[in-house]
Amino acid sequence: MGTITKAIDLLNFFSRKRPEIGLSEFVKLSGRDKATVHRHLTELEENGFLQQNPETRAYGLGPAILRLSGVREATYPMRSVLRPVVRDLADAVGELVHASVLQGEMLSPVVHADPLGHGTQVHFDEAEMLPLHATSSGLAVMAFAPDAFVSRVLEAGLPGITQRTLTDADAVRSLLDKVRATGVARLDRAFDEEVSSQGVPVFGALGEVVGALSVAIPAVRATEEKMTAILPALCDGAVRATRALGGQMPPEHAAKWAAET
Amino acid sequence: MGTITKAIDLLNFFSRKRPEIGLSEFVKLSGRDKATVHRHLTELEENGFLQQNPETRAYGLGPAILRLSGVREATYPMRSVLRPVVRDLADAVGELVHASVLQGEMLSPVVHADPLGHGTQVHFDEAEMLPLHATSSGLAVMAFAPDAFVSRVLEAGLPGITQRTLTDADAVRSLLDKVRATGVARLDRAFDEEVSSQGVPVFGALGEVVGALSVAIPAVRATEEKMTAILPALCDGAVRATRALGGQMPPEHAAKWAAET
Repeated sequence: MGTITKAIDLLNFFSRKRPEIGLSEFVKLSGRDKATVHRHLTELEENGFLQQNPETRAYGLGPAILRLSGVREATYPMRSVLRPVVRDLADAVGELVHASVLQGEMLSPVVHADPLGHGTQVHFDEAEMLPLHATSSGLAVMAFAPDAFVSRVLEAGLPGITQRTLTDADAVRSLLDKVRATGVARLDRAFDEEVSSQGVPVFGALGEVVGALSVAIPAVRATEEKMTAILPALCDGAVRATRALGGQMPPEHAAKWAAET
Repeated sequence: MGTITKAIDLLNFFSRKRPEIGLSEFVKLSGRDKATVHRHLTELEENGFLQQNPETRAYGLGPAILRLSGVREATYPMRSVLRPVVRDLADAVGELVHASVLQGEMLSPVVHADPLGHGTQVHFDEAEMLPLHATSSGLAVMAFAPDAFVSRVLEAGLPGITQRTLTDADAVRSLLDKVRATGVARLDRAFDEEVSSQGVPVFGALGEVVGALSVAIPAVRATEEKMTAILPALCDGAVRATRALGGQMPPEHAAKWAAET
């Protein structure tokens, strides 16, 4: 392991649950000798990658990281980062794929792709916000969102969009339990009378759900076999999308999908 | 210069204007030998700090930076980062100081401090949004904001709050020219009949203005001498606030303030 990797490794010990780390804890976590760890910490601090709490002497991530992330976001906006993931997945499954991100209590489409390999195709409008309770993307997001958020969405009312839209909060809740268990949301003609879809959550930097990736298929060809066949590619796409956004999967979820793909 | 610093130095060559950098450009920028630079780039890429454009082979900042910045923001929210800057400045000038950040076309107060060393004090409400045209913070922000933003603010209308609020777009524009020239906005009783204030801009990761730091003083003791005397501490505070947010000053502005402090 090179020096740079060893130093970066120290940064990777930080998380929301472990926001500050002292020298001796770093030594324990890394299993390296104290002098080396201290030298690396000092150099990282001199470069603004770490800052030391003047009272506790513990280290936290420094402000230089914010500048770099600002440049990264300006260089690779979310749309450009997600586009290749969405395209590859659309090519792999031969159907329309879209990625969307949470914006308030709706999903905002970011990018979509359709290989157009069939006689009929799903009409997808990137300008149209997606309601959470009526889309597979939305259910995938809600299943992994904090309880308080889910309650707020359910209490705000669940308008029927098609005959099959779930408009009852308890029915949505019990479907969310299933989605949480499998990691995948499937909905049949709940947002459009002619479309079925299957969605998976995408996670952000702190393991929080930030959006979803979904395959939308004309209901006439959305057979059980087809829906099952696209699952591995779909889960793989969500892993790629999460990674591209600098996100991380909740560990239990990663294990589940690893089994799937 | 240690290996870690050399590697981090390579990351610092990225900016909004230079989003991707090829190997030979890195060699030129760093003045180091190609083999070393290549080894550092490879190690940074393996750790997700860089990613290589598959077509051009040039490097850009990688997704790992986003995760770290997410953790940093959760660890040190803006309020906690700005609090010591605001407190130190308030102690230095002996008056109420507040920091605020742009939210839409208003400023949202983040934190304030008042050493309460006088017989009268300014009443400051952190829950109250600050209009841009009527506050020194707002003028400091507008002076360094993109033209299109300023036009939008001016066209939205400039309600009079006191007798002295500037309600004419041309008058605001000509004041903004002065603020741009000095780097400091001064306003006398334009938001409250009894308060004068002096504000400076605070910059974000890409050199864009994100908010302001301001000293608010009962008009009765806001003499010309006093306003001038607090300038160096105020400019120094804005430099510290910018640094704490991982921001960077526009270079011409940094030079101006360096002369001031």
